[in-house]
Amino acid sequence: MLSLSPAVADEGMWTMDNLPTKQLEQRYGFKPSAEWIARVTQASARLAAGCSASFVSADGLVMTNHHCANACLDELSPKGQNWFQDGFSAGGQPHEPKCPAMELDRLDRITDVTDRMAQALDGKQGAAYTSAQKAAESAVQQECVAGDPTDWRCDVVTLYHGGRTALYRYKRYQDVRLVFAPDQNIAFFGGDPDNFNFPRYDLDLTFLRAYENGKPAKTQFFPFDVKGPSDGELVFTSGNPGSTSREEPVAQLELLRDVELPATYGYLSTEDGVLWQYGRQGAAQHQEAQNVLFGVENSLKVFTGWLQTLAQPETLEKKRQNETELKQWIDADPARQKQFGDPWAILAPAVAAERSLYARYSMIEGNRRPAGFAGQLYGYARALVRGAAERAKPDAQRLAAYRDANLPAVEAALGSPAPVHPALDETLLAFSLTRLRQTLTADDAFVQKVLGTESPDALAARVVGGTKLGDPAERLRLWKGGAAAIAASTDPMIVLARKVEPDAMALRTRWDNEVDAAEQRASEAIARARFARDGTGSYPDATFTQRLSFGVVKGWNENGRQIPAFTTFEGLYRRATGSDPFKLTRQWLDAKNRLNLNTPFDFASTNDIIGGNSGSPVIDKNAHAVGLIFDGNIHSLGGDFTYDGATNRAVAVDTAAIVEALKVVYRNQSLAGELERGHL
Amino acid sequence: MLSLSPAVADEGMWTMDNLPTKQLEQRYGFKPSAEWIARVTQASARLAAGCSASFVSADGLVMTNHHCANACLDELSPKGQNWFQDGFSAGGQPHEPKCPAMELDRLDRITDVTDRMAQALDGKQGAAYTSAQKAAESAVQQECVAGDPTDWRCDVVTLYHGGRTALYRYKRYQDVRLVFAPDQNIAFFGGDPDNFNFPRYDLDLTFLRAYENGKPAKTQFFPFDVKGPSDGELVFTSGNPGSTSREEPVAQLELLRDVELPATYGYLSTEDGVLWQYGRQGAAQHQEAQNVLFGVENSLKVFTGWLQTLAQPETLEKKRQNETELKQWIDADPARQKQFGDPWAILAPAVAAERSLYARYSMIEGNRRPAGFAGQLYGYARALVRGAAERAKPDAQRLAAYRDANLPAVEAALGSPAPVHPALDETLLAFSLTRLRQTLTADDAFVQKVLGTESPDALAARVVGGTKLGDPAERLRLWKGGAAAIAASTDPMIVLARKVEPDAMALRTRWDNEVDAAEQRASEAIARARFARDGTGSYPDATFTQRLSFGVVKGWNENGRQIPAFTTFEGLYRRATGSDPFKLTRQWLDAKNRLNLNTPFDFASTNDIIGGNSGSPVIDKNAHAVGLIFDGNIHSLGGDFTYDGATNRAVAVDTAAIVEALKVVYRNQSLAGELERGHL
Repeated sequence: MLSLSPAVADEGMWTMDNLPTKQLEQRYGFKPSAEWIARVTQASARLAAGCSASFVSADGLVMTNHHCANACLDELSPKGQNWFQDGFSAGGQPHEPKCPAMELDRLDRITDVTDRMAQALDGKQGAAYTSAQKAAESAVQQECVAGDPTDWRCDVVTLYHGGRTALYRYKRYQDVRLVFAPDQNIAFFGGDPDNFNFPRYDLDLTFLRAYENGKPAKTQFFPFDVKGPSDGELVFTSGNPGSTSREEPVAQLELLRDVELPATYGYLSTEDGVLWQYGRQGAAQHQEAQNVLFGVENSLKVFTGWLQTLAQPETLEKKRQNETELKQWIDADPARQKQFGDPWAILAPAVAAERSLYARYSMIEGNRRPAGFAGQLYGYARALVRGAAERAKPDAQRLAAYRDANLPAVEAALGSPAPVHPALDETLLAFSLTRLRQTLTADDAFVQKVLGTESPDALAARVVGGTKLGDPAERLRLWKGGAAAIAASTDPMIVLARKVEPDAMALRTRWDNEVDAAEQRASEAIARARFARDGTGSYPDATFTQRLSFGVVKGWNENGRQIPAFTTFEGLYRRATGSDPFKLTRQWLDAKNRLNLNTPFDFASTNDIIGGNSGSPVIDKNAHAVGLIFDGNIHSLGGDFTYDGATNRAVAVDTAAIVEALKVVYRNQSLAGELERGHL
Repeated sequence: MLSLSPAVADEGMWTMDNLPTKQLEQRYGFKPSAEWIARVTQASARLAAGCSASFVSADGLVMTNHHCANACLDELSPKGQNWFQDGFSAGGQPHEPKCPAMELDRLDRITDVTDRMAQALDGKQGAAYTSAQKAAESAVQQECVAGDPTDWRCDVVTLYHGGRTALYRYKRYQDVRLVFAPDQNIAFFGGDPDNFNFPRYDLDLTFLRAYENGKPAKTQFFPFDVKGPSDGELVFTSGNPGSTSREEPVAQLELLRDVELPATYGYLSTEDGVLWQYGRQGAAQHQEAQNVLFGVENSLKVFTGWLQTLAQPETLEKKRQNETELKQWIDADPARQKQFGDPWAILAPAVAAERSLYARYSMIEGNRRPAGFAGQLYGYARALVRGAAERAKPDAQRLAAYRDANLPAVEAALGSPAPVHPALDETLLAFSLTRLRQTLTADDAFVQKVLGTESPDALAARVVGGTKLGDPAERLRLWKGGAAAIAASTDPMIVLARKVEPDAMALRTRWDNEVDAAEQRASEAIARARFARDGTGSYPDATFTQRLSFGVVKGWNENGRQIPAFTTFEGLYRRATGSDPFKLTRQWLDAKNRLNLNTPFDFASTNDIIGGNSGSPVIDKNAHAVGLIFDGNIHSLGGDFTYDGATNRAVAVDTAAIVEALKVVYRNQSLAGELERGHL
């Protein structure tokens, strides 16, 4: 998707208030009714931590992926048990345990605030732009939450790179309980080797339940189709794709390709090696490292796909040509010149600033990899130190994460009983500090301030060994104590975060003003020009908000070899070698003779999805659930930048497999019954 | 260096039979005499394992880098001691211990064999080309060695990408003994963080001695200048740069940039993490992993520099333009068209074959990273299995490594008493097997043949646990037993290598014929056309043969900051934090008050060097040693593709620092005396 010209094939992640009804009718003879759209909106949900989900019974039963619930499974596992690895069944609704720190959001309302935001930002630049934006967003959110941030969540969402701004209001469920999860062997059968591959044989599934006032929430839902979809059938996914860069200006994509992506890829690759070897040190270490390792290996595959896509000259060439045409269109008319200016002239210095700040910013202040300060404990310390300072400011002047509307989420995260593994945390911190020194060099004054005469290993050992932040009560005490408690603390992790904070905030400010604000202004101007030229009729880049995609169940041609759309249980047993990650549990081995081996297991479809869509329901024309998205094929990885209908495939678990497995392998008739009935 | 047009600035790695005398005279008023050239040729040497060296006394005293002798230091360390880490002094010539498996070569004669080789290859293509080449090379080498492969080594060297072929005959020293090495803390002060950085404070030095018939060899040598060079002084390096790609066709550089480099970088990054974490498991593991880790981290910095250089559009743009001009020059004249044809038309299918074979070839047969079968023990098994099969063939049909002329080196390597660390070896093999499966996928028939139902970890544990190849005697027994011994062996590592061998050899054959032979033919045609158009007057890409570079001692301007050419001992003590890798030994700390702290320590110069130049002497106009190359600055890393005289710097130890350290820190008056006198 290179422009806002009409999308072809099954491309598109459409907002619920702008569905491609004409295309659907022309291509598939399907016209979604208002009721259909409302049902799909309300039966869909997202996990705030970064996944999609759906309601599949009237009593708040939620379906998502196993890999979306792994934190909860880990946190709830009693000592000596490992629910993440071995699976879990509550054994009836009254016994469902609450997931710590899990938040489920259901979209309630979309309001267009484009004009209001534009008015607030009119004519502003740099720091003035950033602070006006913060103030306006904060005001809009405050109104929307209406004094009840526990029940409502309101996000200001920039769509079409600023072509439009919308306020998304969500019903917030913070009491989410665990119903059922299969074992990790079947949830992630094939492990990293099979990740993003197809044919696939995964039951990547967890059932949760949303509660209100201590009781199962009453919800709209997708009735469960126990037969699953057919080859060639029109299907939809309703989920929350995290982000795409299909409309991103070429200058930013070049920076990504040449600087940011190689740095990220290098960091992740090394971390992959660190965690792999950490996990080989023993069974406990293997378990500790597992979740982080999964995330790292998953990202690595994604970034490998990005690198490959961006390395193809034609990827950026087409986008470059598109920008040239748009610029020519603007320049052809003085009125347009006046209206849109030269967005690329605004962009150039911003991209130059990003290029020169990137290494330092990512090491000291960035919140993703590469990072100079990694690990859960440092993350807590940073949130505490920063949160204390930010909360002392008026709401409108704070960083978004610390506005009043978001404080419940921050506090819930700080109070999470999720276990911290000190040895793993020390390893990750020592590794990141090593990278910090390597990236900024030992001559750097900030590096010298942080390390003093200590080595990265020694510093990490001292602060992880000495901190009490592994204890949620201590974290909440410091949180509640605010700035005074932080200033008085002698906890070495807090001391370290305090030392970093001035440099980090200074970089954040520069980044916000010199990079983000200008890039946003430029993107907005480009987007507005595109709107003026092409009109609406397309979809905005993904923003971790609800989107509908359409497509058909379909295999593809891989270098002359036809890959079928479906796999079956029979294929699973054929692929199982008995060695990790191709190993089945005894339960699955024993069930082989009882299972209908022809049951479809996983399937591929042309739906346009991306990271964040994990856990999305696949639904049919009747808004019945027929599948559960959990992955894409290897060709879907370029989807951040472009959609290729010939090979890009979404990968889902078939609902037929879910019901068959629940009944025959797990003998969980009550859950299977709830799915079939649609209520408890 | 983009073409054979005259090199500007101090660019160039010149062969000893084609020095840039005109440039030297014009720029520096220096005209090397025939005697000067002969002295420089004969006082220089190389370590067959991949470093440069020089003779610095008449009694065979050899100067090279600490990091070039680490294998010897490791291998010779008595149980409970660590000479690599703690340093070594023989305490007098009679006590110098022999380095196992170390070979030193001194260039004796260069013979042009261009015409002879061209005749042998005339009109041949694909498999016929490869086998004619093997046969002709073998014949030339056999004649040159003249039945004495122990004393002489003869390499057929392709220069100017086939524009010229030369026979390099070396005097071979296989009795090389250890004289002196400082501790690793000072040899590699600043470690990986400072590697390829400058200012720098390293005494990266080892002294060896070449022996003949059990006595110190009598050699030409570079008299030692105990004052070192001055700022701005004309200096030369005489060493063996390993390889550069300055004349490589663009299509091959694009493949490198887009496919091979990212794969290599990813593999090395992950291996870096694996080794880093392995080393954190304990002191013994730290020591075991150290050497491999050094190599990995060093390569990573190099490849990072490559990636950055190749990502700059202008790097390839200039080369592309140059090729276009050459093609136009050929096409402008029917006679030229007839003579040179269209080399790019030959190149295109070869590069396409390389692109499609690369992943499989690198995993199964390639001898560098990424690799599907890593570790010392697997390497031994492969050499034994392949060596047995190759030795059964006529010399002219064998792979180069197993021709009669090279068998002494293979046998010496197999017989090396260097310790094998089974846990480390198992780790590296398990890691590479994981990569093998990841790269070729679990669906691949070869992967299934190798792994069967075992996981990479289980397979690695079984074959490393069960093999006897850690014992040099067992390796030599199998070597001497030849094909029969290999066929009869039940050693699990041999069994594994035997299983891989047919696939590996099939890939090797395809690679040699479809990729290498065609790429070489195309490169040769391009090189011959360039010769015809531009004449001689430039230097060939590096080939790990002796080259002279000239330049001046000089700092550079780093983003507006002037970096001085010299560091001093005073700076070393200022930089020492007491934490690894900025930690000094007690010996160095104690010596501080006795040392002349103004002694120049390391220096930068504009000489054009590259990997393989490690250990090269820096000499002055009088052919006196004034320094010892051990590194380049960060800007030198793009030197594989282009030389930028503004920022590209070689980094060397000052001879003044060497003498001062020997006398004051190590109190090694006898060695200092030999350097000052020029003999024992």
